[in-house]
Amino acid sequence: MRGVLVGRFQPFHRGHLELIRAVRRRSPKERLLVVIGSAEQAFTWSNPFTAGERFEMIERALAEAHLAEVAVVPVVDISRHALWVRYLEGLLPKFDRVYSHNPLTVLLFRRAGYPTESPPLIARAKLEGVRIRDRLARGLDVRSLVPPAVADYLQEIRATERLAALRPSERRRRRPAKG
Amino acid sequence: MRGVLVGRFQPFHRGHLELIRAVRRRSPKERLLVVIGSAEQAFTWSNPFTAGERFEMIERALAEAHLAEVAVVPVVDISRHALWVRYLEGLLPKFDRVYSHNPLTVLLFRRAGYPTESPPLIARAKLEGVRIRDRLARGLDVRSLVPPAVADYLQEIRATERLAALRPSERRRRRPAKG
Amino acid sequence: MRGVLVGRFQPFHRGHLELIRAVRRRSPKERLLVVIGSAEQAFTWSNPFTAGERFEMIERALAEAHLAEVAVVPVVDISRHALWVRYLEGLLPKFDRVYSHNPLTVLLFRRAGYPTESPPLIARAKLEGVRIRDRLARGLDVRSLVPPAVADYLQEIRATERLAALRPSERRRRRPAKG
Amino acid sequence: MRGVLVGRFQPFHRGHLELIRAVRRRSPKERLLVVIGSAEQAFTWSNPFTAGERFEMIERALAEAHLAEVAVVPVVDISRHALWVRYLEGLLPKFDRVYSHNPLTVLLFRRAGYPTESPPLIARAKLEGVRIRDRLARGLDVRSLVPPAVADYLQEIRATERLAALRPSERRRRRPAKG
Amino acid sequence: MRGVLVGRFQPFHRGHLELIRAVRRRSPKERLLVVIGSAEQAFTWSNPFTAGERFEMIERALAEAHLAEVAVVPVVDISRHALWVRYLEGLLPKFDRVYSHNPLTVLLFRRAGYPTESPPLIARAKLEGVRIRDRLARGLDVRSLVPPAVADYLQEIRATERLAALRPSERRRRRPAKG
Amino acid sequence: MRGVLVGRFQPFHRGHLELIRAVRRRSPKERLLVVIGSAEQAFTWSNPFTAGERFEMIERALAEAHLAEVAVVPVVDISRHALWVRYLEGLLPKFDRVYSHNPLTVLLFRRAGYPTESPPLIARAKLEGVRIRDRLARGLDVRSLVPPAVADYLQEIRATERLAALRPSERRRRRPAKG
Repeated sequence: MRGVLVGRFQPFHRGHLELIRAVRRRSPKERLLVVIGSAEQAFTWSNPFTAGERFEMIERALAEAHLAEVAVVPVVDISRHALWVRYLEGLLPKFDRVYSHNPLTVLLFRRAGYPTESPPLIARAKLEGVRIRDRLARGLDVRSLVPPAVADYLQEIRATERLAALRPSERRRRRPAKG
Repeated sequence: MRGVLVGRFQPFHRGHLELIRAVRRRSPKERLLVVIGSAEQAFTWSNPFTAGERFEMIERALAEAHLAEVAVVPVVDISRHALWVRYLEGLLPKFDRVYSHNPLTVLLFRRAGYPTESPPLIARAKLEGVRIRDRLARGLDVRSLVPPAVADYLQEIRATERLAALRPSERRRRRPAKG
Repeated sequence: MRGVLVGRFQPFHRGHLELIRAVRRRSPKERLLVVIGSAEQAFTWSNPFTAGERFEMIERALAEAHLAEVAVVPVVDISRHALWVRYLEGLLPKFDRVYSHNPLTVLLFRRAGYPTESPPLIARAKLEGVRIRDRLARGLDVRSLVPPAVADYLQEIRATERLAALRPSERRRRRPAKG
Repeated sequence: MRGVLVGRFQPFHRGHLELIRAVRRRSPKERLLVVIGSAEQAFTWSNPFTAGERFEMIERALAEAHLAEVAVVPVVDISRHALWVRYLEGLLPKFDRVYSHNPLTVLLFRRAGYPTESPPLIARAKLEGVRIRDRLARGLDVRSLVPPAVADYLQEIRATERLAALRPSERRRRRPAKG
Repeated sequence: MRGVLVGRFQPFHRGHLELIRAVRRRSPKERLLVVIGSAEQAFTWSNPFTAGERFEMIERALAEAHLAEVAVVPVVDISRHALWVRYLEGLLPKFDRVYSHNPLTVLLFRRAGYPTESPPLIARAKLEGVRIRDRLARGLDVRSLVPPAVADYLQEIRATERLAALRPSERRRRRPAKG
Repeated sequence: MRGVLVGRFQPFHRGHLELIRAVRRRSPKERLLVVIGSAEQAFTWSNPFTAGERFEMIERALAEAHLAEVAVVPVVDISRHALWVRYLEGLLPKFDRVYSHNPLTVLLFRRAGYPTESPPLIARAKLEGVRIRDRLARGLDVRSLVPPAVADYLQEIRATERLAALRPSERRRRRPAKG
């Protein structure tokens, strides 16, 4: 039995960690594989961190939480949604179940016959991604929102400086063109 | 004499069908080729249906309307507008005239020396694409807007469920980041 | 019932035409769809003709042979074999059977559950592709190998001149590097 | 000593020209290389002009201003920000300094160890790009905003007509979907 | 301390396994990460198995050999060699050392400042890849060349049938064109 | 009047330099633009040097030969031959004439209506590319084949070491598979 947790993890936060902990508690024998989606994206407001940085965050947070034996695989996007599940099947070992809250991800895996679960914890997590980035950009504390190891890592890579540079200006938010 | 009708057909609706009928009536000898643009796009709010599904819709609607001998060709996007007409020329048999209401399509074909026509029917059609998707997403009836065969097909592939999952949330409409 | 004939048609020749005729005779109600593969390839020794030129050849040959109602669809390659069948399914209306002699094409469609057929005529045809190109490059007659309409078209687009320019030199055949 | 000025130049305007003049005055021995970014983009509202047209504008404006020995290199985008500086390093001769006002460009070059400068003139220039396009789309005069040679060239290529066709409609500005 | 072993693993064989065992013995604290290169390649003679199948082979062979805590990451090729190391750095957590016998891989990592090792076992392994595929294609036994778990898996996925279909014909080996 | 010289310049050698000198002598007013083709290719046997390195070679050789005012533009390949000329037209300022000895380049530009010239010097040059790489790989002197500045530069970037690593082995030359 293997479950796949699909996310972008920009950044990896407490919601993600709680979800992994919950899956582990419920089915201790289930092998868990974390897919870091949009792995080629970095240095944008929606995807500020490289896949390598996100990999590092996840690894450190899992070690800190003594959650061993979780595999992590960064996956570069394929631009065609209709092929995405088949593409993942061609990259990963066989899996049986998918955890995600993204409606498109859920739709695509269900059409391909996979059972999907969207635990409430991820729902909250989803909201937190952009909120955490916003707090980082404004130099506010995020320690209550991410695992301690991630908070340290974000400081180490000077996330605040990066997010501040990537944040869309007020002006750009109001205009359609990016000119 | 061959005319090319370029569209995305998300979905194929009465406006498109009326246009084909009008061209047929006006110049019965003109061979007509329908280009399904953005063929690689699917499972997004703007492009919910695969090219294969759109091909199926068009085929069924034309059969129902006894409009034979219309060729249908799905065409995957090329990301460079400046090359797009040459790209189409490299994929299709020789053509002489282009039907489209999209201002960019018209601009690019005119620059390449093609006569273009934007019949008023397509203009109305253009507006209908997003309106039909919106009605589908909200579970409303679309029978007055699409040919009967298309209405049946949309039910067959459970379009309402798909559109509801793909519809951007109110929250995302107001924010610039998709985070 | 719809059958799909997959090929590159460089150029379309008598073997291809005979195959289409044979399918038509055997199952007159089967709708036939010809997929022009590697549609983005052109001006190379293996793929000298654009998809548009190949489309034109097929259309003229079918008209000459009074074989109506055969759909033609050029399909741009996707670089991942493992996704190719799903990619085609996303571009075409539903089909039930595949005609091809290429071992990889047959392997991929069988894995996806499609019945495949490799009529002996195509086998011969396969051999003829490169032989016809070779004859064209050397200025020899190909009228016995291609339908009359194709022979005329090849002359019209000055195929001999093009093939002569694209033919790999003796020197390049002996060296690994393209230098 | 070589400096690289990175921009999209949609279109090349007085702010850009003044910047080049200022660099020349300050360090007459510095070789200057102008990188036309997003070179593959054209015929969109944000990037209406092809790289070739932008190259032509820059060349004419520099000749008119007697600013010789400025190299111009159009550079096609790479979709991965994290690799962009390395990608540029692989395309250009060695350079030592970067001029840009774009926060992302500055962030990426600084991380790679390059000194960057954002002269105030470019800041103003940045604002002008979209304003000039907007004026062009509405048929207003832009002679005070671009060098004379560029104004003539814009007329020559009928920029007003193009911009008017590409300008997003009011309706599209208010809706998230482009349908 | 983390070492990265880069290979294509078509298929994973005894040479690969012995190498991992040797690294483990020599530096038991070194974390090991296996990169499955050319992850998008499959169903060709050089790359017959999907990355998912190769992932599965490696996982089973490591479990059978009680070699725990080896991470596996499939990595899709980037077409530009000059950017490849930076691309890997953007996908993986920080690493310190690279194991590979491929001269290009070694060259690129050395230029980027990484220590590289090419243990003799991999050299032998390299030769074995094509030899094992050749034996599979001819229906010969490969049990002495691959770990038992891999031998079973190859049977499970009917590797012989696949390799036989993908093997280039004698004729194609002698001709330059693939016609 | 502007002429474009298209080549890969792996490396830039005396044949190339002589050609530029000859064009300058014959038509002193012709502006010359050197296109470095396959700019994204590097670290392969056929294309060992990055576009940036080739740019540097050309710049140094031209300076040494007092051939001023030759523009250099690296151009990343587009995978579709049928669109290549239009793609170049979209990147470069208007040009009137093309210098190349590559039969495909000549064929494509002629079809697009450009006058092309293949001076005998380039023919010889073409042969020299692979011969120079071969000599470099074997540690032999190339001073008689390349301009002095290029010979120095090749030493500076340790070309011999790189070429030796990239040279295909005897074994690979005899086998079809690269496995």
